[in-house]
Amino acid sequence: MKFKLIQKDRATKARAGKILTDHGEIETPIFMPVGTAGSVKAVHQRELTYDVKAQIILGNTYHLYLRPGLEVLETAGGLHKFMGWSGPILTDSGGYQVFSLAESRKITEEGVLFQSHIDGSRHHFTPESVMDVQRTIGADIVMAFDECTPYPCERSYAKTSMELTHRWLKRCMERFDATSCKYGYQQALFPIIQGSTYKDLRKDAARFVADQDREGNAIGGLSVGEPAEMMYEMTDLVTELLPEEKPRYLMGVGTPANILEGIALGIDMFDCVMPTRNARNGMLFTTEGIINIRNEKWKMDFAPLDTGFQSYVSNFYTKSYLRHLTISKEMLAAQIASIHNLSFYLWLTEQARKHIQAGDFLSWKTEMVEKVSRRL
Amino acid sequence: MKFKLIQKDRATKARAGKILTDHGEIETPIFMPVGTAGSVKAVHQRELTYDVKAQIILGNTYHLYLRPGLEVLETAGGLHKFMGWSGPILTDSGGYQVFSLAESRKITEEGVLFQSHIDGSRHHFTPESVMDVQRTIGADIVMAFDECTPYPCERSYAKTSMELTHRWLKRCMERFDATSCKYGYQQALFPIIQGSTYKDLRKDAARFVADQDREGNAIGGLSVGEPAEMMYEMTDLVTELLPEEKPRYLMGVGTPANILEGIALGIDMFDCVMPTRNARNGMLFTTEGIINIRNEKWKMDFAPLDTGFQSYVSNFYTKSYLRHLTISKEMLAAQIASIHNLSFYLWLTEQARKHIQAGDFLSWKTEMVEKVSRRL
Ligand SMILES: [Zn+2]
Ligand SMILES: [Zn+2]
Repeated sequence: MKFKLIQKDRATKARAGKILTDHGEIETPIFMPVGTAGSVKAVHQRELTYDVKAQIILGNTYHLYLRPGLEVLETAGGLHKFMGWSGPILTDSGGYQVFSLAESRKITEEGVLFQSHIDGSRHHFTPESVMDVQRTIGADIVMAFDECTPYPCERSYAKTSMELTHRWLKRCMERFDATSCKYGYQQALFPIIQGSTYKDLRKDAARFVADQDREGNAIGGLSVGEPAEMMYEMTDLVTELLPEEKPRYLMGVGTPANILEGIALGIDMFDCVMPTRNARNGMLFTTEGIINIRNEKWKMDFAPLDTGFQSYVSNFYTKSYLRHLTISKEMLAAQIASIHNLSFYLWLTEQARKHIQAGDFLSWKTEMVEKVSRRL
Repeated sequence: MKFKLIQKDRATKARAGKILTDHGEIETPIFMPVGTAGSVKAVHQRELTYDVKAQIILGNTYHLYLRPGLEVLETAGGLHKFMGWSGPILTDSGGYQVFSLAESRKITEEGVLFQSHIDGSRHHFTPESVMDVQRTIGADIVMAFDECTPYPCERSYAKTSMELTHRWLKRCMERFDATSCKYGYQQALFPIIQGSTYKDLRKDAARFVADQDREGNAIGGLSVGEPAEMMYEMTDLVTELLPEEKPRYLMGVGTPANILEGIALGIDMFDCVMPTRNARNGMLFTTEGIINIRNEKWKMDFAPLDTGFQSYVSNFYTKSYLRHLTISKEMLAAQIASIHNLSFYLWLTEQARKHIQAGDFLSWKTEMVEKVSRRL
């Protein structure tokens, strides 16, 4: 993996760049659709490419490990081949899901013992096993195994947890560097900065992580319920300490406004389930603001969902029709809304990139944050 | 609406024809995907056109009347515009759903009183109101209001019911002919032949319906649980009595084998929820036979779903991947399986047409019936 820094904004810390992987290029800043269990929910692979214009997608190690499981993934030749996605893939380490989904989890120095949320079966994730699992899944970018602290989090717990995450990172790196890719293309390992909402801990973590000198760096443990201003403050002080020449990934963020602010703070990569999860609940993010499509006000609105950018579903289907499908619990509702929201997110990061390159990112961002945050 | 009979098979009663509507041509024999509430479940309109290659789709009057309702449909300019489907549409009369879905229905000479299965609200369908509703929905082909008898059905009830259906038909025609299309294109009314599984009743009904001299004729009340041989027998004697120069529609049929046998008996049009409903349960109809994709045997099968015909989903996604999606309850599973099954059904009727025109329909049909019926 290589990263080229192409342009730095003058008024903000925003950057335009390019990540080169063996599965293709990624123009940053970029939003990465979440494909939990080998599928971006309700979206065909062809639609991911041509409608959403995704450049990289995410897979969840926890889900993929449980289903379809490593035997299937390895025999298929990795996740790319298994699901039929030939672009870059990033996998998280499974830590977040183990802590949020799995049952009766027990954390020790060695790793985490947990029971599957599907069938109650017992499993053990360690930094080493998670590296091996991600070698088998075969993502282009794999994440270190960490503990994602909740919000709020006591300082003492945040510190202890961060130190564990750092010891685990060392073990991840050792295992990762002692093994090689299984399918003939390169994989890169990104470490994760934790430290909850404590400035000094975040700084310590950022320095520690930067010192490991991996190919990219990630910020975890944010967007977990803390006020947005606190998330921005933590992101700001962390990006100050991260090397310029490596991509920065803010995990699990966020709303369109969060993403624009994150870009302004020097973030290059984002992922979030919000565009797809909220789509399934009838919430649309549009170029003009946020729509709850169940609202009576759209009943007779025969205008397209969003004409602010080019997109089949957004330009073709009307608000009245989507409202009807949503209320009637038709699957097509989730399909339309998911493609729309993802297309919009990808359009938004693409526009951010253009404005960084054009030199007017700040004024554009200020205007857009207001626009995309209002409720229609 | 016009119908051109293009070719009659010599060895069977199969025919190749063409229906001309103001929304385009339909090459018969044809399968019509069911778009219950203004959506063919899990399939985008674009996919209906380019993947499924649907030439006409079905809408359900009962569902559309309840949701989105007539006010929305009329303001939109009819169902075509509301849902964004510019090809031909056929709507059923709502009778079947009123009898199978609605609550506390009460049938009288006048019509049917029923309560919505959605919110319990009370409604009254009469032959006249159902014509008006279908004028507002705006389908190219609308169906007469009938009573669909269950199987088995006492002879006395079947006779009484058939006679009611005939009186209702007269009232449907009167109302339909006294009103006009609302959106500037022509609509045609098809009467329905009932008579349960009684040969003499079926013959009486066929003669009565043929005498009305409408633009096409339909056979209802079959594929409701009776043995397939009985369905074929009834179909056979009815098509004997129907005029050659008008299209014949066998309602609610059926499996791929049922459709092939129906074509051999002189049927031109079919509809069924089976390809989409069974798709959602993991059953695939393929050129080689029937697949239950949940079966363990497909776990490591990395071959495409079906390479027997051209279709994005069938040629692109593997059995192993679809099995994983189905077991993981991913929406994409239903999307893939629905498009696959519908594409296969449309491929099947298209092939039937080609073989009728090539003169070898019977031998092809015999081979295909065996193939498409076996369990893989
Ligand atoms: Zn998120
Ligand atoms: Zn059926």
